[in-house]
Amino acid sequence: MERSIDFYFDFISPYGFFASLQIEELAQKHGYTVNWRPYLIGVAVTKVMGLKPNMQTPLKAEYIMQDIRRIAEAMSINLNTSNVLGQHSRHAARAFYYLADRDIQAAKTFAAKVFDTLWVQGGDITDMATIESLLETVECDTPKALDWLQSDNSKERLQIEVESAIKKGVFGSPFFLAEGQSFWGADRLPMLENWIKTTSA
Amino acid sequence: MERSIDFYFDFISPYGFFASLQIEELAQKHGYTVNWRPYLIGVAVTKVMGLKPNMQTPLKAEYIMQDIRRIAEAMSINLNTSNVLGQHSRHAARAFYYLADRDIQAAKTFAAKVFDTLWVQGGDITDMATIESLLETVECDTPKALDWLQSDNSKERLQIEVESAIKKGVFGSPFFLAEGQSFWGADRLPMLENWIKTTSA
Repeated sequence: MERSIDFYFDFISPYGFFASLQIEELAQKHGYTVNWRPYLIGVAVTKVMGLKPNMQTPLKAEYIMQDIRRIAEAMSINLNTSNVLGQHSRHAARAFYYLADRDIQAAKTFAAKVFDTLWVQGGDITDMATIESLLETVECDTPKALDWLQSDNSKERLQIEVESAIKKGVFGSPFFLAEGQSFWGADRLPMLENWIKTTSA
Repeated sequence: MERSIDFYFDFISPYGFFASLQIEELAQKHGYTVNWRPYLIGVAVTKVMGLKPNMQTPLKAEYIMQDIRRIAEAMSINLNTSNVLGQHSRHAARAFYYLADRDIQAAKTFAAKVFDTLWVQGGDITDMATIESLLETVECDTPKALDWLQSDNSKERLQIEVESAIKKGVFGSPFFLAEGQSFWGADRLPMLENWIKTTSA
């Protein structure tokens, strides 16, 4: 049986970005595949948990800026946070699922480009023009994709993913499900690796 | 000049407990001392940040139980969470500062025993009788300490510590301040160590 890791993330989460650069290598090393699952952390955090977004939380917001700069430096990432505040990831997440239903590799390539656009190039992933230009760099029928992105099907598709994630106990970004265990945070990747090593043995 | 790490924690935080078992060795290795600073995370989380305690937060509460069991197993700690819910750490934190003002080593020994009582023995640190019996195991005038613990001075002393912590941007447990940088979480200990290695070089 094929073993897999569910990788939940939000494109607007820097920790999701950091994890996206590491999870495929970790999984491949142990013969696992990765199910990339973009979702909207805002729904989990504000509607289900009754909390506030990190960047609207006193003390935490300032801390996170320090923390992500240190992590980026350790990973040799030229992190650009100049254009991040106020962005949302709905268009990007919906476009991901459009691709994923047709060509999972194109979807993963697209996801990596969305992360890079937002977190390295300081681009605007909230703008549909950005999504369009990123779709054009992967193998897909871009006009058809853009039509679908305007449809109710597209909204519904993402809603179902978000609800399904929350039902499984997912919150925050990144969040991993593997072998019946939950792992929250890019800093839990070593623990996830230990766990799958133990259960694969 | 003596270099030091400020170690903020709440006795009711399991991650504070995990960090308490590691921080002295890490600091000593690099010629740093550790300033133990128990405080009340509830004040930071509910009053300043506008959030809810972890164990009253849907999704997160269930996750934390899974996470701390895995960490305890990796650290070979026989974690006992049977008696934790509903406890508070005010008496323990005040007693710590009573000792710290007189004998810092006795205070650290006491802190380690409080953590062990709560997180390994499943004891009740909210009960003043427990605090009394722990004070009796360290070098101090226990009747005098108990008198002070009933006084307004004792309340005020802890309040000042909590407010001072929050003014420095401290939230959560554990939280470390070193070399002008903040580190939140037992999982940031390797990052803290890297940072002090770099600045000491």
